[in-house]
Amino acid sequence: MTLRCHSLFCFSNMSPASNALKCNLHFSITDEIGKLESCLAAIKSMNVSLTRIESRPSKTADWDYDFFIEFQAENQSQVVQVVEGLKKHTTQVRVIGSGTAVQGGMSLSCGLYWTPLIEYMTLLIYIASLFVETSVPWFPRKMSDLDSFAEKVLEMGEDLSADHPGANDPVYRKRRTEIVQIAKTYRTGQPIPHVDYSQQEVETWGSVFRKLTSMFPDHACREHQYVFPLLVQNCGYNDKQIPQLEQVSNFLKDCTGFTLRPVMGLLTSRDFLNGLAFRVFHSTQYVRHHSHPLYTPEPDVCHELLGHVPLFANPDFAAFSQEIGLASLGATDADLEKLATIYWFTVEFGVCREGEKVRAYGAGLLSSFGELEYALTDKPEKRPFDPQVTAVQKYPITQYQPVYFVAESFKDAQEKIRAFANQMERPFTVKYDPYTQSIEVLDSKEKVVKYAQNIRDDMRNLTMALEKLM
Amino acid sequence: MTLRCHSLFCFSNMSPASNALKCNLHFSITDEIGKLESCLAAIKSMNVSLTRIESRPSKTADWDYDFFIEFQAENQSQVVQVVEGLKKHTTQVRVIGSGTAVQGGMSLSCGLYWTPLIEYMTLLIYIASLFVETSVPWFPRKMSDLDSFAEKVLEMGEDLSADHPGANDPVYRKRRTEIVQIAKTYRTGQPIPHVDYSQQEVETWGSVFRKLTSMFPDHACREHQYVFPLLVQNCGYNDKQIPQLEQVSNFLKDCTGFTLRPVMGLLTSRDFLNGLAFRVFHSTQYVRHHSHPLYTPEPDVCHELLGHVPLFANPDFAAFSQEIGLASLGATDADLEKLATIYWFTVEFGVCREGEKVRAYGAGLLSSFGELEYALTDKPEKRPFDPQVTAVQKYPITQYQPVYFVAESFKDAQEKIRAFANQMERPFTVKYDPYTQSIEVLDSKEKVVKYAQNIRDDMRNLTMALEKLM
Amino acid sequence: MTLRCHSLFCFSNMSPASNALKCNLHFSITDEIGKLESCLAAIKSMNVSLTRIESRPSKTADWDYDFFIEFQAENQSQVVQVVEGLKKHTTQVRVIGSGTAVQGGMSLSCGLYWTPLIEYMTLLIYIASLFVETSVPWFPRKMSDLDSFAEKVLEMGEDLSADHPGANDPVYRKRRTEIVQIAKTYRTGQPIPHVDYSQQEVETWGSVFRKLTSMFPDHACREHQYVFPLLVQNCGYNDKQIPQLEQVSNFLKDCTGFTLRPVMGLLTSRDFLNGLAFRVFHSTQYVRHHSHPLYTPEPDVCHELLGHVPLFANPDFAAFSQEIGLASLGATDADLEKLATIYWFTVEFGVCREGEKVRAYGAGLLSSFGELEYALTDKPEKRPFDPQVTAVQKYPITQYQPVYFVAESFKDAQEKIRAFANQMERPFTVKYDPYTQSIEVLDSKEKVVKYAQNIRDDMRNLTMALEKLM
Amino acid sequence: MTLRCHSLFCFSNMSPASNALKCNLHFSITDEIGKLESCLAAIKSMNVSLTRIESRPSKTADWDYDFFIEFQAENQSQVVQVVEGLKKHTTQVRVIGSGTAVQGGMSLSCGLYWTPLIEYMTLLIYIASLFVETSVPWFPRKMSDLDSFAEKVLEMGEDLSADHPGANDPVYRKRRTEIVQIAKTYRTGQPIPHVDYSQQEVETWGSVFRKLTSMFPDHACREHQYVFPLLVQNCGYNDKQIPQLEQVSNFLKDCTGFTLRPVMGLLTSRDFLNGLAFRVFHSTQYVRHHSHPLYTPEPDVCHELLGHVPLFANPDFAAFSQEIGLASLGATDADLEKLATIYWFTVEFGVCREGEKVRAYGAGLLSSFGELEYALTDKPEKRPFDPQVTAVQKYPITQYQPVYFVAESFKDAQEKIRAFANQMERPFTVKYDPYTQSIEVLDSKEKVVKYAQNIRDDMRNLTMALEKLM
Repeated sequence: MTLRCHSLFCFSNMSPASNALKCNLHFSITDEIGKLESCLAAIKSMNVSLTRIESRPSKTADWDYDFFIEFQAENQSQVVQVVEGLKKHTTQVRVIGSGTAVQGGMSLSCGLYWTPLIEYMTLLIYIASLFVETSVPWFPRKMSDLDSFAEKVLEMGEDLSADHPGANDPVYRKRRTEIVQIAKTYRTGQPIPHVDYSQQEVETWGSVFRKLTSMFPDHACREHQYVFPLLVQNCGYNDKQIPQLEQVSNFLKDCTGFTLRPVMGLLTSRDFLNGLAFRVFHSTQYVRHHSHPLYTPEPDVCHELLGHVPLFANPDFAAFSQEIGLASLGATDADLEKLATIYWFTVEFGVCREGEKVRAYGAGLLSSFGELEYALTDKPEKRPFDPQVTAVQKYPITQYQPVYFVAESFKDAQEKIRAFANQMERPFTVKYDPYTQSIEVLDSKEKVVKYAQNIRDDMRNLTMALEKLM
Repeated sequence: MTLRCHSLFCFSNMSPASNALKCNLHFSITDEIGKLESCLAAIKSMNVSLTRIESRPSKTADWDYDFFIEFQAENQSQVVQVVEGLKKHTTQVRVIGSGTAVQGGMSLSCGLYWTPLIEYMTLLIYIASLFVETSVPWFPRKMSDLDSFAEKVLEMGEDLSADHPGANDPVYRKRRTEIVQIAKTYRTGQPIPHVDYSQQEVETWGSVFRKLTSMFPDHACREHQYVFPLLVQNCGYNDKQIPQLEQVSNFLKDCTGFTLRPVMGLLTSRDFLNGLAFRVFHSTQYVRHHSHPLYTPEPDVCHELLGHVPLFANPDFAAFSQEIGLASLGATDADLEKLATIYWFTVEFGVCREGEKVRAYGAGLLSSFGELEYALTDKPEKRPFDPQVTAVQKYPITQYQPVYFVAESFKDAQEKIRAFANQMERPFTVKYDPYTQSIEVLDSKEKVVKYAQNIRDDMRNLTMALEKLM
Repeated sequence: MTLRCHSLFCFSNMSPASNALKCNLHFSITDEIGKLESCLAAIKSMNVSLTRIESRPSKTADWDYDFFIEFQAENQSQVVQVVEGLKKHTTQVRVIGSGTAVQGGMSLSCGLYWTPLIEYMTLLIYIASLFVETSVPWFPRKMSDLDSFAEKVLEMGEDLSADHPGANDPVYRKRRTEIVQIAKTYRTGQPIPHVDYSQQEVETWGSVFRKLTSMFPDHACREHQYVFPLLVQNCGYNDKQIPQLEQVSNFLKDCTGFTLRPVMGLLTSRDFLNGLAFRVFHSTQYVRHHSHPLYTPEPDVCHELLGHVPLFANPDFAAFSQEIGLASLGATDADLEKLATIYWFTVEFGVCREGEKVRAYGAGLLSSFGELEYALTDKPEKRPFDPQVTAVQKYPITQYQPVYFVAESFKDAQEKIRAFANQMERPFTVKYDPYTQSIEVLDSKEKVVKYAQNIRDDMRNLTMALEKLM
Repeated sequence: MTLRCHSLFCFSNMSPASNALKCNLHFSITDEIGKLESCLAAIKSMNVSLTRIESRPSKTADWDYDFFIEFQAENQSQVVQVVEGLKKHTTQVRVIGSGTAVQGGMSLSCGLYWTPLIEYMTLLIYIASLFVETSVPWFPRKMSDLDSFAEKVLEMGEDLSADHPGANDPVYRKRRTEIVQIAKTYRTGQPIPHVDYSQQEVETWGSVFRKLTSMFPDHACREHQYVFPLLVQNCGYNDKQIPQLEQVSNFLKDCTGFTLRPVMGLLTSRDFLNGLAFRVFHSTQYVRHHSHPLYTPEPDVCHELLGHVPLFANPDFAAFSQEIGLASLGATDADLEKLATIYWFTVEFGVCREGEKVRAYGAGLLSSFGELEYALTDKPEKRPFDPQVTAVQKYPITQYQPVYFVAESFKDAQEKIRAFANQMERPFTVKYDPYTQSIEVLDSKEKVVKYAQNIRDDMRNLTMALEKLM
């Protein structure tokens, strides 16, 4: 048996419960057909506690196998031993996500529950030293990899900041802890559990709903207004009940393939944008504090459902949101910050021209009574939307924006964002495969040839359609 | 309000329980934004019992809405009244699936439980007469449309033919009735329920498993042998348990996006092939009769899991299976028969050359101990695989095949089938959208332009990948 | 016979010799096969003096014929009569080039030799009034249409401005008149006649050549330096002889398909840029005044051969120059001015970064000893090249530039120019067909379908290449 | 200086006059910019008589140079010395055209005038032994490479076979010798010289013209009939004069980019088909013998002008003729014979269905009074056109065909020929560049990336056209 390891993706983590190291490895082997079993034996003989072994047909070469293994290690030297063990069989190595994970989103969550940070850092540096290329931050490859974000929230749903209206309301905080439990245990592919909202929660939603829907006709962009009645009819949008994420997610899937995924609180920009690459939008499920129905310092279900959801039903908006997501995969920290800023000034606070008027398409505006009115007045500065400029604009997150960027049209914003995302430099190119809900890194002959074949087949189909249609 | 109906797809059915007519209509309207509600009012005022109303963003024109309605009518004149009501608002009409549904798959199932067939025929003829174009058989547009096949089986799982080994075994028949209940009530998107197989069933499976796996090394094509150990490792393939469809389906989804869907028994060729357009394979879940573990006159779970499943994990096989499926959508009855024959001689009974040898890739062979051995001997006739010839070859369904068609290679078979499917004449071109799991008929400016934009974007991405890779 | 006129392109002109109106019409007719003769009879019966009739297979519809006719009319009413005559047979009409030709490049040349301008204007307004769409300036469709530019120079080679060093040298002026005679009578497809340069002219060239070639290693961009020795070897570039345009043009054709075409003097921006759409570069053939070998206020053969030619041998530069040309076809006057300004700051005066240094790629710099040195010092302002900004920058034409735009790289300039050209708004899209050396306006089903088929075939070919190569 | 030789194409020949070896080499070098001169010095120091040195920008890598050299060697050892000299600088070598040239077209012409064939064979075997890959027959890369075919005719125009009606007419033979002199000295890019046909020749043409044009309405395919009147109007087709190749060639260039090139007599199939890759059709210029105006055993100008020319004005016919040509480049002898047979049964003797009737589109039929009539009767066998079958059909060349292949339609023939050509196996893929009139072998990163960029740009352009058009 020749266990040849083409690529090795190592992602180490520390389980909070046991203080043991949890480590994910992704690698490919070339073997004789039918000898997969002996490969497994070699892996199993490494004497660590394997918590997951998945083998799949290789996406790289026709007769290789891809492996994803997850194991518990008692300490760093055991991880080193496994990696060295695999290294023996390795000819070509490519590591994504080890070294820079410390600066990236991962270290933040690690910090929360992991004491021996020093040891962990040492390990990462060791792993990094094993390989040549270590500069690309880790990113999810399969939709189920998003499961690893579940507990990596910057601000947990239950840890409210001091200025939060519910910060001193223990009943409210207990209720949130209940609701975020859904996000904590949610796994890809499951239906999103139903939340039985209380009368008080529904009333809070009702206030927001009535206020905002009265403003949409004069403030929301045409695309938002087009979709809204569909949500009323199909997803039960009205002031008497809070729509369920599951129903809304299914509606979006029908429209554009976007789905919602419950989240405990704020993710890092990297994780959040990475989700968009899969057409997955991380959505909160809890409701703002009843004492201030028209104000919330953070996203809540009202913001998601009234601000974000209508736009994700638009095919073009869905496509360019995904493009931001794809651009964020493995982006440098500098580029990621730019993408996050672009996201802020468009998906959250974007306005666009509609004939003589300016209208809002950003969810932050469309879900905020006060700022929606303010933004369309002459008070704040309006600049033409230009991604190169917008990407480096500073912004406050706790008050009304002093500057908005105005797109010539909804379509114009899309085109510009797309062009901006496309020109970011990355040493590799990615492609999303909606059939397998996975990201392909186009880094081998086989993948590029298959991609070209797909385009050729599409081109053949398009030509047939043109011949018949026109 | 201008309720303008662009296209109207009518699909009538009869509910077995109530003898009432169940009718599906699909149409689009152009309206002012925000006036959706008045459209709904117009539809509701039609005075029929609406069992489903879905409204969606239009796939045809930017500011249109698509409607899918389902209603119960007490008699045909009520259906006529609704159609006439909609017709008032209609400028352009295109009906798919009414007239020819009678000759197509639909009439078969109708016949099973619907007494007043005459009335139904009259209705269909009436509806057909309302419209100009009625020649294209109905076909599913959304994956959930496959739900309508659930009870339309040619041979119900419980109705065994006289020569079935279990035909006179009431315990066996009762068991099958239990199992097909899953398929009967299964709906798109749900996990496939677990079947708790009996000891006897597992033993039957075990016999088949041991016999066939001993033959695969010398008889199965390379692609089958490559995937098989992955099924052993990931889906619990072994002689001690019957793998669960849900687990296998999830594995396939990871590999190629194919999924399994439980089925009560044999579908019509049209329905079965239509499913492949969505990368959905209809799979039985019950086990052959224990008295003849190595023989079954019809598909059972052993046939599906050992014969079909391994190939659907192969990306090329998945792609061309889908291409047969796409070609079958709205195909004429003559073309459909050709596609079904091609399917028979490839997916079910295909053999291919591998160096000096001939190996099996058809599931009918790979799951039949006797025929697998027989097929690779010199006894049956072997002809070179040529779709034009193969498509019109007659074949027996209850005995070993007298003729097999040998592909030069697995890849060669794919290419030829694809070329054959592509040259079939149809007045329209279709495209599958894996994000929304729906079929698009490329029959309007907007759709073709969007398709071209997607290809352009893919081409841009491919070019970037080439620039970086090579 | 049904003489149906699909499109009618009218281009009126006044012959300088006779004061008669010279008029070009381009239209298509649908007719029975074999009845072309009767169509011709109808045209001939119009009772004007036809100076050219060309009939061609239609580029629009399979069984149509395209006609190009040219006739002399004695006065405007005769033109009106012909147009009205054709109009009777016309169902769909599209006129390009009549109305706005007055403001466009054409009127300028008309002014030079045409007295009854008022009559001409009246005629154009009349013709314009006949048709709905008149907003698109005329542009050449076939390479031979460039022949019509021959005498439309802004400043004739013989009319030197007062500040020209040779303005008061009658011998020099006589010599130029001799040389421009070649350009005046040159027609597409002919070899460019040889000029037997005088000893004095060769010496002037020699001075320029020696001076500039000594500067190239430190001032010219890498692409210029790469091509230059090829010109030395293949086209006789040295200080002892002036290379012949014909030889240089053939060399360029081998490299990129660009060709040179002799020109009498300055063309309008529109005509000049239109030529680039055909990969045709209008080149002077005469030499600057010997009294100032290192200075010339206008292009001369030293400028063309040392500045422009090397870059046109570069495939990328050739491609983007053509793209500017294609964007200029039928562009509005406002857009044309922007394109001309872009051209000025890139093809004529562009500089780019090469590692730490800035190097010149603009021909105006590369052929001017003084400015080449000056431009790379710190004296002039350097701004980053951004087409949106550059396109509206004012510039002097008779002194060193105060501002240069620095591209990040040669490649970067190309990409940006291309993106800028692509986003210009025009009501139609064009495509150059290098086989027939003609422009296609993609305005009909047939043309778009054929284009799509070509791309499909190219995509098939590319995929084959990838499969074999990688 | 590093003279690194990437690829080396060697094509040896023997000059008939001097008995010296004429040798062509094509290779690429990598060098520092500006050091081209020292490379040249190295080549010149090889001490052979260089008759041509061309250097060009590399089509392979950005900073390489391509060289084409031609030299006279006194004997084989001098050639060996040069090749060995270059070999020193060589890292990667690819030879096309040496070894198999003997079996290919080349040996035929060699045989005609070259005595020391043994020496030549030895040389070729020696050169072949130097390199690994020698299996691909030589083929032209630039349009001017077709110049090397000029004297390589199988049957020289002056050597008439015994059964030729003019075989014993010395005046006729002298006249042909005069006319073929044009073809003998013609070089790419020149206008085709005018032939001043004698009264007798015009009368012979006139007889053929009158006879055939009377038959076209009932026998020629629709496409032929569509173009014919255009030839009457634009190229002077009538019974009073023989159209000049130059005028006809210019007309074809306008229509499809095809051009005519005068030829002395029959070329080998390989050379003839290779010409089609460049959209160049080799055309005779002389006239059949006056004694039998309706018969000729070989092509003459009547056959070319009345049979071939009309079809080459059709864009689809032009495209698929070129595709046969491209498939023939470097094809194996076996594949070449198939292509030649396909060519015979389509371009020369093809018939197609038009509604109820069968019509001719092959030039051999359209220029032969007798066979045109015979072919459309029931006497000869008619089989459906299927390239796989047609490609291996035997045929007589001196009598009426016993079998014709009937295409379902003109379009159908094209599609099938194209599919057949595309599936021929070759270890490389080619692409024609109409700008530089050269063939690119898509065998390097740079070329494939540029091709992909071109397709991307075309796709962008097509998408814009669709957005505007529909």
